[in-house]
Amino acid sequence: MPTVRLALAQTNPVVGAFEGNSASIVRFVRDAREKGADLVGFGEMALSGYPIEDLASRPAFLTASREALHRLAETLEAEGLGDVPVIVGYPDGPFEPRLSGTANAPTAIAQNCAGVLFGGEVVARYAKFHLPNYSVFDEYRNFIPGDELLVLRLGEVDVAVAICEDIWRDGGPVSRVSSADAGVLFVVNASPFERDKDDLRLPLVRRRAVETDAIVAYVNIVGGQDDLVFDGDSVVVDQGGVILARAPQFEEHLLLVDVEAEAATEPHIVEGVRRVDLPARADDRAELPRDVAELPDDREQVWNALVTGLRDYVDKNGFPGVVFGLSGGIDSSVVASIAADALGPDRVFGVSMPSRWSSDHSRSDADDLAERIGLRYRTEAIASLVQPFEDQLHLTGLAAENLQARVRGVILMAISNAEGQLVLTTGNKTELAVGYSTIYGDSVGGFNPIKDVPKTLVWELARWRNEAAEARGETPPIPENSITKPPSAELREGQTDQDSLPPYDVLDAILDGFVSQKFGPEEIGELGYDEQLVGDVIRLVDRAEWKRRQSAPGPKVSQTAFGRDRRLPITYRPGT
Amino acid sequence: MPTVRLALAQTNPVVGAFEGNSASIVRFVRDAREKGADLVGFGEMALSGYPIEDLASRPAFLTASREALHRLAETLEAEGLGDVPVIVGYPDGPFEPRLSGTANAPTAIAQNCAGVLFGGEVVARYAKFHLPNYSVFDEYRNFIPGDELLVLRLGEVDVAVAICEDIWRDGGPVSRVSSADAGVLFVVNASPFERDKDDLRLPLVRRRAVETDAIVAYVNIVGGQDDLVFDGDSVVVDQGGVILARAPQFEEHLLLVDVEAEAATEPHIVEGVRRVDLPARADDRAELPRDVAELPDDREQVWNALVTGLRDYVDKNGFPGVVFGLSGGIDSSVVASIAADALGPDRVFGVSMPSRWSSDHSRSDADDLAERIGLRYRTEAIASLVQPFEDQLHLTGLAAENLQARVRGVILMAISNAEGQLVLTTGNKTELAVGYSTIYGDSVGGFNPIKDVPKTLVWELARWRNEAAEARGETPPIPENSITKPPSAELREGQTDQDSLPPYDVLDAILDGFVSQKFGPEEIGELGYDEQLVGDVIRLVDRAEWKRRQSAPGPKVSQTAFGRDRRLPITYRPGT
Repeated sequence: MPTVRLALAQTNPVVGAFEGNSASIVRFVRDAREKGADLVGFGEMALSGYPIEDLASRPAFLTASREALHRLAETLEAEGLGDVPVIVGYPDGPFEPRLSGTANAPTAIAQNCAGVLFGGEVVARYAKFHLPNYSVFDEYRNFIPGDELLVLRLGEVDVAVAICEDIWRDGGPVSRVSSADAGVLFVVNASPFERDKDDLRLPLVRRRAVETDAIVAYVNIVGGQDDLVFDGDSVVVDQGGVILARAPQFEEHLLLVDVEAEAATEPHIVEGVRRVDLPARADDRAELPRDVAELPDDREQVWNALVTGLRDYVDKNGFPGVVFGLSGGIDSSVVASIAADALGPDRVFGVSMPSRWSSDHSRSDADDLAERIGLRYRTEAIASLVQPFEDQLHLTGLAAENLQARVRGVILMAISNAEGQLVLTTGNKTELAVGYSTIYGDSVGGFNPIKDVPKTLVWELARWRNEAAEARGETPPIPENSITKPPSAELREGQTDQDSLPPYDVLDAILDGFVSQKFGPEEIGELGYDEQLVGDVIRLVDRAEWKRRQSAPGPKVSQTAFGRDRRLPITYRPGT
Repeated sequence: MPTVRLALAQTNPVVGAFEGNSASIVRFVRDAREKGADLVGFGEMALSGYPIEDLASRPAFLTASREALHRLAETLEAEGLGDVPVIVGYPDGPFEPRLSGTANAPTAIAQNCAGVLFGGEVVARYAKFHLPNYSVFDEYRNFIPGDELLVLRLGEVDVAVAICEDIWRDGGPVSRVSSADAGVLFVVNASPFERDKDDLRLPLVRRRAVETDAIVAYVNIVGGQDDLVFDGDSVVVDQGGVILARAPQFEEHLLLVDVEAEAATEPHIVEGVRRVDLPARADDRAELPRDVAELPDDREQVWNALVTGLRDYVDKNGFPGVVFGLSGGIDSSVVASIAADALGPDRVFGVSMPSRWSSDHSRSDADDLAERIGLRYRTEAIASLVQPFEDQLHLTGLAAENLQARVRGVILMAISNAEGQLVLTTGNKTELAVGYSTIYGDSVGGFNPIKDVPKTLVWELARWRNEAAEARGETPPIPENSITKPPSAELREGQTDQDSLPPYDVLDAILDGFVSQKFGPEEIGELGYDEQLVGDVIRLVDRAEWKRRQSAPGPKVSQTAFGRDRRLPITYRPGT
């Protein structure tokens, strides 16, 4: 069987930054060409960033994308790189709106495409057929589906092209790969990270390889984009599903591999298949080292996703750094540690804002953390700011409790307005689920690194991060006391979270059933939880929807994150 | 031609309140039966409320809906109302997920249905075929499409049933109405209000009547649901498109009309058509008065939409009333007037929060407004609350300006926490577009009645409301000075909005082009606006996405509202 040298370019594009993304593509192509690649493939919408959401309905955006693709082909040729075929994802359009009839609405005018560049030109394009429209995806809203499989004849080998969801579902162009007798299936992806997704993705890629009797090359983008983090983890498997090469998660990488692919036969005509012939390169080339990354353990993967999500939100949006309240509790300690890993401690600013109810350990734990991590740190006591409100408005009870959180929010925003940092909010997923937070108080902030992390996982991550530091001979960043002490909002004397909430292990299990598994109360009850408690928790979750609607974005790491992954009415009166 | 008495029941359902919605349906059926109706039809999802969003993915919710439908049929029979066929919209399920393959995601398990109740049973169901998945709609995400037209033989007349989008697009079951020879097409709708939508909806209904040579009965729900307002405006047209009956907007109404429909022939078998036979009633019945509502003028329609949206958000969510900052400016004055119209002045609480920069007219205009409307009113000066922050944090410039707005937000939330009112935020659409607001400051609040109202329309509405009062011999609610004075945020000495923004008529025109029409900068420039200015405005809009993401919901009244109508990335770097 002929050997083909495939290059999978795992890049980190920025949405809308056609110039910067193109420059990155050129760099990767140069590197791949120097290393003798026969074909270089980039991820889904590597040219435009992903997801572009309703930018897909702006004709000017689509025109810019199409022009950028042509300019990229010309640049590659001009720089002497035009003799390597390049597959790159981009949004194409504007096309005639898809819907017939009189629908009074914007309709899809774009396609989700992979362009093939060669010799200074766009020689072929493939349009995604299966458009995901569930979970975080709105592709049926934004795109017109394609209907034709693309097969590139590359010297002696046929390479079929598909995009992401095309291999997740049966039917469509990919079902023609076997009958088209392609030796390689090249899949262009923007597949966001979630826990245990590699348990689905890799078996899927292997299954498609076996089904189509082809090498499958799966290239994914990396990086954070608002509430999504793309993990890369690009992979190439042989016709039997054996891994030949695998890129690391969460970092840009050029994955090179020599594959032995079925030689192309005289192409028999298959309906719905477009064929394009490209000449093969005939370079002498050095042997490649084996490049098969190992996946780290689950907690490390989640940690890296959170670090990547935060770093890219901060850097892609041009913030000098981050600022947030440091309470000595576990949530803000973990956020501080994530932020330091993402940005370096110099760009992390923690503000301790003790109140009359703050315990001694809150202050000492916050001090300890700041010192361990080496972040910028300042204390602003809130008593003298809170008192005037209490005196003027005669506040007691909940109003007085929330006031303290809101005064802290005002302090953080004032610092941000004066110095330009992004304010982070540090509420975990469990709090967000049951509404255990003060809106416009501790929820103040433009990004929440642990938005999709339940409290029990916050603790696990803290322990893992400390262990990882110890294993490297470094100081564990998170004070042991922040991990072990009972959690408290400290908004009144002697308060602990468990005054209002069930134990976190129970609460997180119920929430996982309700939010992630979409179980009803009876199914959760059958798992062994008290019926009354389950009903109470569900009511809390349903009633907190209005708060979540105004919450900051944060990286999705679970199967069902709050936000566009889970769209629910605020006004909802079950049982009435 | 035989005469049929149709009843269109325009109800205001609450999402999830199966019991309350059913009780309302029973009341309307009783009324319709007493008035001799042969058939009573309700709106889309009148049983469950609409839109249910991802509640459609909860098996327990769907089971509750199906059970509620059967219980409703039994109740109608038990109360002696079972001899009138009733068409009622509801979500049905759970069904097997739609998607094949290995998609790692929740997939649609529901159908958007109309059930036909008769004799204590559910005798037929129709499932919506065309699923809107644009603008505010996510129905392809949430529902499995149907594929069969339903035709009810009602004595001598055939009645075809369709749901909403089914008539907005060509093809699908509705294209079989002619070949099935139905005399009546009964369309069950949940069609949200937007300006000038009646200019699309009515011509569409008329066109379908002419095309199918059938009476078209179009029944819509009314009421607010989060950011949507359903306007009713149910209508019946004859085979030539002439209006026979029309319900008023924004209120519950039973629209009764006698129509002369083509007699049914021996049914020829048409593929994709399900037929159900129902006996005709043979009541003696009194002649019906003509019931054809007139549509009010555009500004009144918008006003009524805003009033309805606010009232239903407040009442359906069980708030005792609303509270908000009253600045003497036009935005809060219009909100106060909307709130008083929606809830009565007793449930409206305005708080004047003057600062050192507040002009005399701000206070006197706020006083004047409060007196004119008769709302509850209180003054809380902010100087002594702001000063401690300034002293402790050494704030100047923007940080000091925003601080004032944030202190006001803290006051409003403290009052809300103490007394239970819903806090309203009063930023208009223009401010929201360009980010001219203080996040966690004047943006504090759970609902924004004028979220989708550009500044120029705010002024128009104020003038209209005053004129309407005068025409009724009432005191105009809004002080003339609030309408005519130059707008200012009053966050520093002598500030006016036009220090930072172009004149509002220019700004609103550019925003309409960019946001609603989705024009690019060149197309807007061709309308005669300065290229540099257009570019600046577009940049402001793109950069304010993060603020909008955390903004309160408010009623959609334009073609493109901010929120789920317009889904855009925060991280977006065009031109880089």
